[in-house]
Amino acid sequence: MSEFDAATAVHRVAEGRYRADLDPGFAFGGVINGGYLMALLTKAAHDASPFPHPISTATTFLRAGRGGPAEITVETLRAGRSVATLRLAVVQEGRTLLDATMTTGTLTAGAAAGWAGAAPAMPALDECSTPARRPGGDSFADRVELRFDTSTLGWLDGRPIGRPEMRGWFRLPGHEPDAAVLALAVDALPPVVLNLGVKGWAPTVELTWHMRGVPAPGWLAMHAGGRLFSDGWFDEEVEIWDSAGRLVAQSRQIARAGRG
Amino acid sequence: MSEFDAATAVHRVAEGRYRADLDPGFAFGGVINGGYLMALLTKAAHDASPFPHPISTATTFLRAGRGGPAEITVETLRAGRSVATLRLAVVQEGRTLLDATMTTGTLTAGAAAGWAGAAPAMPALDECSTPARRPGGDSFADRVELRFDTSTLGWLDGRPIGRPEMRGWFRLPGHEPDAAVLALAVDALPPVVLNLGVKGWAPTVELTWHMRGVPAPGWLAMHAGGRLFSDGWFDEEVEIWDSAGRLVAQSRQIARAGRG
Repeated sequence: MSEFDAATAVHRVAEGRYRADLDPGFAFGGVINGGYLMALLTKAAHDASPFPHPISTATTFLRAGRGGPAEITVETLRAGRSVATLRLAVVQEGRTLLDATMTTGTLTAGAAAGWAGAAPAMPALDECSTPARRPGGDSFADRVELRFDTSTLGWLDGRPIGRPEMRGWFRLPGHEPDAAVLALAVDALPPVVLNLGVKGWAPTVELTWHMRGVPAPGWLAMHAGGRLFSDGWFDEEVEIWDSAGRLVAQSRQIARAGRG
Repeated sequence: MSEFDAATAVHRVAEGRYRADLDPGFAFGGVINGGYLMALLTKAAHDASPFPHPISTATTFLRAGRGGPAEITVETLRAGRSVATLRLAVVQEGRTLLDATMTTGTLTAGAAAGWAGAAPAMPALDECSTPARRPGGDSFADRVELRFDTSTLGWLDGRPIGRPEMRGWFRLPGHEPDAAVLALAVDALPPVVLNLGVKGWAPTVELTWHMRGVPAPGWLAMHAGGRLFSDGWFDEEVEIWDSAGRLVAQSRQIARAGRG
């Protein structure tokens, strides 16, 4: 079992109830990463649903999670012949951290697209930069492999590029991409508004992501953009492309920023 | 009261319960339009929430609705100082048509954007085409004013343009745009896959939309696109721009198509 599978393991304790242990290694400043929580949802759904793939997951983040025990609840809203709809929640110390509605189905590995948009441009892996890791570190950056498109790293040197963009390559050590990895990946990049010079915490309020294909082994390309930052709210769209050049996941989140 | 307000009126019958009468004039082939149902959600939320605007609404469509009585249920998941999160459902004859999670808040009319993407190109209103209306007709096309960008109408003549695009102008007779109109507008265009030559019903499985600004009076510009049609699933993104040139709503839906 990979480190990631161990960190996102869920244990069925009753019909529609799963126990998990939120891994503080997937936190920023003590707050558990939203993508990690969404990865837990895919694990619970994989057990609870008759269909393997989380085609659509709409997640509302209600409260910040911390490392430690949590419970995942799953209720089937409707089970059809080819799709099932579940409502899920992650609860910690009696408080709901997030509430999600998921539609599961079956995607065909290697399906040929009827139509596909062009993949956004991305520099080759060896032209991208690796964030510094601390020896023996135990944070999000130590659990995943991220290589950034340096043209979107201006914010890091106090020179935000003036556009809500962020790009990078992503993989997990010893774990090929699957639905749980895609759930993690769609929320793994720093907020795009860092490149608008917006500082401080940018809490996600809602994130909907769609699994669009069964990912091929290898690195994932992550492209994040946005359309509007206004009135303290911004949207962020992420596309995940696999090593075979297929769009395998897409997300949009709405988040708050600029409130000091 | 405008025709639209009458058709989307909700009546509070108890704490968190509203009665509505689904108007068959907002149906296609007997199936009530999803945007109309989402408009009803905004009406119920406007009564139930302490905040006026549906910042984020994630809707899962479970069953087709028909004209006639229905009930809308609203449960508050969390009410904070500046946002509240609601869970809503539309129920007809004991069956849940849709399940939604909504975050409400307060948008500032005329807010200046911190950053905004460019509006997509759109032909002027008088260069767009008006769909034929039947005298005395009582369908969706008779309830709204739609003018299509003719460069995206190839599908209508059996010459799909080969790209998942659809554009048009939209307004409601005698009713300036508000949250309910935006909810209707994000699902008012024909499915983009018609322009890929895909025929038949294209049922929406999930649609998340965000209200991004308080719309100015006048026509709304609607731009629909998509990124992938594969394995029987397609995504459709819609942006709604107001007459002042502001992005006031954005949506993404995932839908099924090509199943005959």
